[in-house]
Amino acid sequence: RSGGTGGSVGTMASESEAQRALQYEQTLMYGRYTQDLGTFAKDEAARLRLQQGHGEGDSPRPRHPSELLEYTQGRCAPCRVCALQCQRFLISKVGEDWVFLILLGLVMALVSWAMDFAIATCLQAQKWMYGGLDTNVFLQYLAWVTYPTVLITFSAGFTQILAPQAVGSGIPEMKTILRGVVLKEYLTFKTFVAKVIGLTCALGSGMPLGKEGPFVHIASMCAALLSRFLSLFGGIYENEARNIEMLAAACAVGVGCCFAAPIGGVLFSIEVTSTFFAVRNYWRGFFAATFSAFIFRVLAVWNKDEETITALFKTRFRLDFPFDLQELPAFAVIGIASGFGGALFVYLNRKIVQFMRRQKTINRFLMKKRLLFPALVTLLISTLTFPPGFGQFMAGQLTQKDTLVTLFDNQTWTKQGLNDEFEYLGILEAWRHPRSSVFVTLIVFILMKFWMSALATTIPVPCGAFMPVFVIGAAFGRLVGESMAAWFPDGIHTNSNTYRIVPGGYAVVGAAALSGAVTHTVSTSVIVFELTGQISHILPVMIAVILANAVAQSLQPSLYDSIIRIKKLPYLPELGWGHHEKYNVRVEDIMVRDIRYVTLNCKYRDLQHVLQSTRMKSLPLVESAESMILLGSIERAQVGALLNHQLSPQRRLQALRQKALAEDGHRLSEASICFQINTEASSGAPTRINPRKPLKPALKRVPSGPVETAPAGTTDHTGIALKSLFCANTTTEPIEAQGMAYRKAKHVRISIVEEMDLGDRMTPAEILDWEEQQLDQLVDFSSAKIDPAPFQLVEHTSLHKTHTIFSLLGLDHAYVTSIGRLVGMVSLKELRKAIEGSLTAKGVKVRPPLASFRDSTASATEPDTTALRQLWDRHQHHHMPREASPGSDDGDELP
Amino acid sequence: RSGGTGGSVGTMASESEAQRALQYEQTLMYGRYTQDLGTFAKDEAARLRLQQGHGEGDSPRPRHPSELLEYTQGRCAPCRVCALQCQRFLISKVGEDWVFLILLGLVMALVSWAMDFAIATCLQAQKWMYGGLDTNVFLQYLAWVTYPTVLITFSAGFTQILAPQAVGSGIPEMKTILRGVVLKEYLTFKTFVAKVIGLTCALGSGMPLGKEGPFVHIASMCAALLSRFLSLFGGIYENEARNIEMLAAACAVGVGCCFAAPIGGVLFSIEVTSTFFAVRNYWRGFFAATFSAFIFRVLAVWNKDEETITALFKTRFRLDFPFDLQELPAFAVIGIASGFGGALFVYLNRKIVQFMRRQKTINRFLMKKRLLFPALVTLLISTLTFPPGFGQFMAGQLTQKDTLVTLFDNQTWTKQGLNDEFEYLGILEAWRHPRSSVFVTLIVFILMKFWMSALATTIPVPCGAFMPVFVIGAAFGRLVGESMAAWFPDGIHTNSNTYRIVPGGYAVVGAAALSGAVTHTVSTSVIVFELTGQISHILPVMIAVILANAVAQSLQPSLYDSIIRIKKLPYLPELGWGHHEKYNVRVEDIMVRDIRYVTLNCKYRDLQHVLQSTRMKSLPLVESAESMILLGSIERAQVGALLNHQLSPQRRLQALRQKALAEDGHRLSEASICFQINTEASSGAPTRINPRKPLKPALKRVPSGPVETAPAGTTDHTGIALKSLFCANTTTEPIEAQGMAYRKAKHVRISIVEEMDLGDRMTPAEILDWEEQQLDQLVDFSSAKIDPAPFQLVEHTSLHKTHTIFSLLGLDHAYVTSIGRLVGMVSLKELRKAIEGSLTAKGVKVRPPLASFRDSTASATEPDTTALRQLWDRHQHHHMPREASPGSDDGDELP
Repeated sequence: RSGGTGGSVGTMASESEAQRALQYEQTLMYGRYTQDLGTFAKDEAARLRLQQGHGEGDSPRPRHPSELLEYTQGRCAPCRVCALQCQRFLISKVGEDWVFLILLGLVMALVSWAMDFAIATCLQAQKWMYGGLDTNVFLQYLAWVTYPTVLITFSAGFTQILAPQAVGSGIPEMKTILRGVVLKEYLTFKTFVAKVIGLTCALGSGMPLGKEGPFVHIASMCAALLSRFLSLFGGIYENEARNIEMLAAACAVGVGCCFAAPIGGVLFSIEVTSTFFAVRNYWRGFFAATFSAFIFRVLAVWNKDEETITALFKTRFRLDFPFDLQELPAFAVIGIASGFGGALFVYLNRKIVQFMRRQKTINRFLMKKRLLFPALVTLLISTLTFPPGFGQFMAGQLTQKDTLVTLFDNQTWTKQGLNDEFEYLGILEAWRHPRSSVFVTLIVFILMKFWMSALATTIPVPCGAFMPVFVIGAAFGRLVGESMAAWFPDGIHTNSNTYRIVPGGYAVVGAAALSGAVTHTVSTSVIVFELTGQISHILPVMIAVILANAVAQSLQPSLYDSIIRIKKLPYLPELGWGHHEKYNVRVEDIMVRDIRYVTLNCKYRDLQHVLQSTRMKSLPLVESAESMILLGSIERAQVGALLNHQLSPQRRLQALRQKALAEDGHRLSEASICFQINTEASSGAPTRINPRKPLKPALKRVPSGPVETAPAGTTDHTGIALKSLFCANTTTEPIEAQGMAYRKAKHVRISIVEEMDLGDRMTPAEILDWEEQQLDQLVDFSSAKIDPAPFQLVEHTSLHKTHTIFSLLGLDHAYVTSIGRLVGMVSLKELRKAIEGSLTAKGVKVRPPLASFRDSTASATEPDTTALRQLWDRHQHHHMPREASPGSDDGDELP
Repeated sequence: RSGGTGGSVGTMASESEAQRALQYEQTLMYGRYTQDLGTFAKDEAARLRLQQGHGEGDSPRPRHPSELLEYTQGRCAPCRVCALQCQRFLISKVGEDWVFLILLGLVMALVSWAMDFAIATCLQAQKWMYGGLDTNVFLQYLAWVTYPTVLITFSAGFTQILAPQAVGSGIPEMKTILRGVVLKEYLTFKTFVAKVIGLTCALGSGMPLGKEGPFVHIASMCAALLSRFLSLFGGIYENEARNIEMLAAACAVGVGCCFAAPIGGVLFSIEVTSTFFAVRNYWRGFFAATFSAFIFRVLAVWNKDEETITALFKTRFRLDFPFDLQELPAFAVIGIASGFGGALFVYLNRKIVQFMRRQKTINRFLMKKRLLFPALVTLLISTLTFPPGFGQFMAGQLTQKDTLVTLFDNQTWTKQGLNDEFEYLGILEAWRHPRSSVFVTLIVFILMKFWMSALATTIPVPCGAFMPVFVIGAAFGRLVGESMAAWFPDGIHTNSNTYRIVPGGYAVVGAAALSGAVTHTVSTSVIVFELTGQISHILPVMIAVILANAVAQSLQPSLYDSIIRIKKLPYLPELGWGHHEKYNVRVEDIMVRDIRYVTLNCKYRDLQHVLQSTRMKSLPLVESAESMILLGSIERAQVGALLNHQLSPQRRLQALRQKALAEDGHRLSEASICFQINTEASSGAPTRINPRKPLKPALKRVPSGPVETAPAGTTDHTGIALKSLFCANTTTEPIEAQGMAYRKAKHVRISIVEEMDLGDRMTPAEILDWEEQQLDQLVDFSSAKIDPAPFQLVEHTSLHKTHTIFSLLGLDHAYVTSIGRLVGMVSLKELRKAIEGSLTAKGVKVRPPLASFRDSTASATEPDTTALRQLWDRHQHHHMPREASPGSDDGDELP
């Protein structure tokens, strides 16, 4: 990191998430994540070295070198230099952002259009097969059922094999990535291919699945790949902050070109993925999404599907009198009911996932037969929608698109006036049943589709839930609209003109309300305007969407937040609607006071103690245990490296050699040259990986033998103190073990080289002695990399402000200081607990409502002053006996 | 402030702004601002005391006590307690946010509707007068001209007298307020009244002025007042963070109920006022704006103006084929031309203001006759629009609303087909001129209205520029559309169907593009959809708006940013479109290294030196000049207070008394009691104001005489060193003088009391001696209020990141540290200079484009390590001779 302002902005997941991620590996569905690109690179490097040493890998999943290369930036260096000179003038003239955005929009429009085309072809094929076999109902059923089952199974299998990260919606992961967490292999080309093909097959099956969420993910991958491709032409594309901005724009493009809704796309992507949005990124999203939507629709015109560019689901409601004021209560009812429905959908979806996980026997069986679950679900759903069977009561033969077209239809399906029976034409035919009314069909459709959609979205294929929910909402709106039309056949308005009720308008309102409730967004209203091409129902839509949001948000998290929790991704919950009591909780109420720290004048033994006693990813560096003045933050890995270096057999042997040098002068001259090289390579920057160069010569001399037994054998009599430390960590922290592998590998490598040259002349007892002696030395921090300005809070910062700052800066933890003195720490975990209120019993004293008002003037400055006075006093009388301050119980360890 | 996390989030204006604000006091138009509520309260308290003491005020503008009371929260305490108990249950049940938002929406809808009604009546009256006098053209002219002149003059005078803050748009000020700066008297009831009445009169005059910007301001004032009103029922409304959130929602309400455009209102207000937007506030804006727009339109229905709720400027373009693909180039042309036009408008507007200011003679004359300028401008504009005169060539008789209705008209004004002349009906008549074509009328209209609008918006009345620009854009679009219609009379499409070109659609596109270009927003597109009730032209509108933005943003700042600069409000410029080079400038390139600081173990003399040598609002507090470890930040006022207290005559006399006590034991017993009281009151918390209690008894004993001459006479022989310090400051920093007034006042008060009791027994020489002696004492910081966690950056932070953090957290300055050591400071000023590139000559070394890429691994940790090593070395060898570090040139002053 070039400069960690205010702590780790490009943040890592905290300890607890890492642990959860482990649990998560055993779970049924969805992709995996790891914490940090750096850690990943280190692990990989270590593993690769070990593998190269062993000749074969012992890790369960063999990795290809290409996988690793995706994370290195150094390839094609000569090609890059050449291209640079050619393109420099062009690039400097053209500017990059808009070129990038146009390319992104173009590619995504092509992808979207091609996928739509493929999906339409798939659906057409199913219809054709079903229609062609109309002589035999059983054959028809077989065709109707087999076709989607095969497609879904293929999709599930394909994504499982190629890239399990492609499973699911993608919006929750994008939200996490935009918060600054790096998810492993989430934006690679392999995932892109898996997602595109998997999604096409999944949607081609006709299951109630959506393409919106996956499109956000696809667009993000597209942006990441494009950015990597364009980085061949210049260094600008390699900036992390810029990449995040481009990813935000890509999310907008994803929604925009999925629905041909640029404005709605931008807003929806902002609402769904961001907590704080930079307005300066706004135009990027608009620009790219507009261009993408434009190309997407122009392709339809060029393909002669449309005469000109219009909306995707164009409606033709009357403009002069779209709705009556007295219809507004009905719209409000739709909104409130959709709110409950949306919350129920999220609840149902979560319960299905949890049920599948909790049932151990089912789970074990399904884990073995990964493709069985998708196949079974598809079989069940397609059986129920079989048109000659139960499907006749729920318009089963209609595809999702046809369903929407019919639901948004301009006509009234129930009796118009008094005596004319409505003629169902074309695809509207599907909604009519000879022995039941359209109301029954609609109700059955809504009920069946509801649980089907909730179930189908848990299938491990690339799929979203937005469209299914949108359709259900439209059907519910239509139901209310048709009821209103039946109730008031001549309209409510009793003036001269007769304005009949337009049930299609209700369908639009219902669609926006239910999808808004499930996703907790209000921008679904904009999406429906752009989707239908009419904005006349703006007020009913807005009212219904806001009411639906109000109800749903007070009952359940959004679908995406729910998935984030299920997947155990690192997140920070929102403060919620009525969060005023959050102003009264302060950092001092939730902070961890008992933190381990490193002092500037500590000994290596202290480092060892600290590493043993805490699992924190980064440790605060303070001036001294007395002053507790915070100087910076040092990563755990760095502390380990320092300790590692101090106790390295290399140094031990060097010491030994110096002693030996007194005995015989020139015997080791040759070996010492070899030493110099190795020392240089590994001591300068202990954690920076110099990919292969120092490794190969070292390993060439050791063809076999010691390496196999290295972790067990060699370290047995080198670095005993160190080993006990690492072993302790290995047992308690399984995730850490992986990270240690690299250090061990290095350790082993060095010791091998030296054993070759010198042999080990020290007995274990001598080594222990030497190590004890080394541990008592003062730590030399000069080679460690220290974050010089970690983010600091003060004790009186309110929870609300802390939440704001954490989500603004994407922090993972912050130190609490008081006039430079470290007094505590707040991490994402504490914050989350405090917001969710689970910590109340364990220590958060929620202040009475007016507490902050009462003591706003009196007590605010009190502790600051006291702390300052102590500091000042101390300065007057130098090195007073240290006072027992409350936040430093671990001072006993550090003399 | 309850806890300043990471520095002063609720920030104050920096030094330079304060100075500019002074310049600004002399300028012609717009309101004033000051930096900080706290400072304001102090100033006011000091002034009020002085006034009470003097019996009459010597400030030019007498203040009423009620003005001050608005800033105290303590009134009505018994009433509040009573109300609390009654309402507690209700409030806890109901929740507050939505109640507040509903109330806000309701009030604003009523205000908007009532104002529209009043404006329509005013315009009707003018039309009626003009129509009634059609016998005599001269009388007609008189009526046509006098009416708006009187209204504008009244508006200007009224706002000038009641609240000069009400002048202008209000959006620039709201942007500043939402950034965290407190503008004086900007959200008071008086300003509210002035703005509402002033705006009604201004718009009623028929000048080309808008109501959007002022409505944002009105809604914000409404929210602030409502929040203050509701705070009578509970303490929740008094939270600062919450108030900012509510202000953001209020801005959305302002736009929303002005245009009945809730979505556009929310987006426009976000784009115009925020740099980073919290998505959690999103629903607030939507909720309030929707409710407000709903009520606003329902009022129209109830008033029988409309049959049902529809758009404000409803269009009736055909839905099936809104535009041809081949028309898109024409829309793009509109966009690009609008971009240039928008930039020109902003430029023209700024130049007019600057011209008026620069011309000293004009300026002086106009300053004397404040109402002359508005009257002259109105006279000029209304003369030119006089319908029988020049107005006949520019549809002068149409009001702004009628103009828009006609421009968005569905029909084509030029020849339809080959032989039928279009019949102009109703208000369309105005566009026809017997001797010229409609093109000439349109061109004249655009040209005349362009400079008229730019000129009219500089009149010091409450007015916005959005609507005038919107109308000009619509006219321009209409012009292009009519040209296209004349060029392709049968439409471009050569298929079977003939789809004629719809010039009204072009008008919509032009309106969105020009207003988008002037305000640098893309959400004007959403506003036109909501305003016209049709979204069919979404793609042309989006394309034109984005192109217009691209052009305008590369040429000029937005109108609001331009006004911010003219008014010298504290601001941070945007990074702009192609800001990639900003990644390569780092904090170390722009930071001020030569900063003054306060050490923990410094003497009072050092404080004096620091105060004399710097103008910084807050000073860093470091551990010692050797370590430079940053402990916190102390405000300048606090340092002054410390010094003040140390040199106070009170302490001097106490010292004197102790000496005297040795001489005679009991003579001063009575006086000493009086001293005890006074010492308690003023030493405990030097800057906290205990409103009246300690003041009154002190002043009662001094009926007259010494007080009048106090500032000149009494301090003459008390606190000589202090005085020289303050005098030095007074001459160099005129704004500081006001702030010093309070301190002086206190000083004077105390000295008076003591002189009464003791007389002055010391000669000036003795005093000087005593003061020199006092200055050599070590500073006791225990009574000072210190911000324990000011925001810190590191040297390698990129300009881009710094900008993000400054705008995210609303910072005013940040310290640059390196492993706890203070090495520099960055304030808004440096950042602004670096972004605007004006500092390049003076020291910013802009790195070569790929520099950050090249040295990202090698050099990043180098200086940190060096700094750390120094620190470590120093700790090893205690108190080494101090090294000459580059960032501490002022160390010579501080031993």
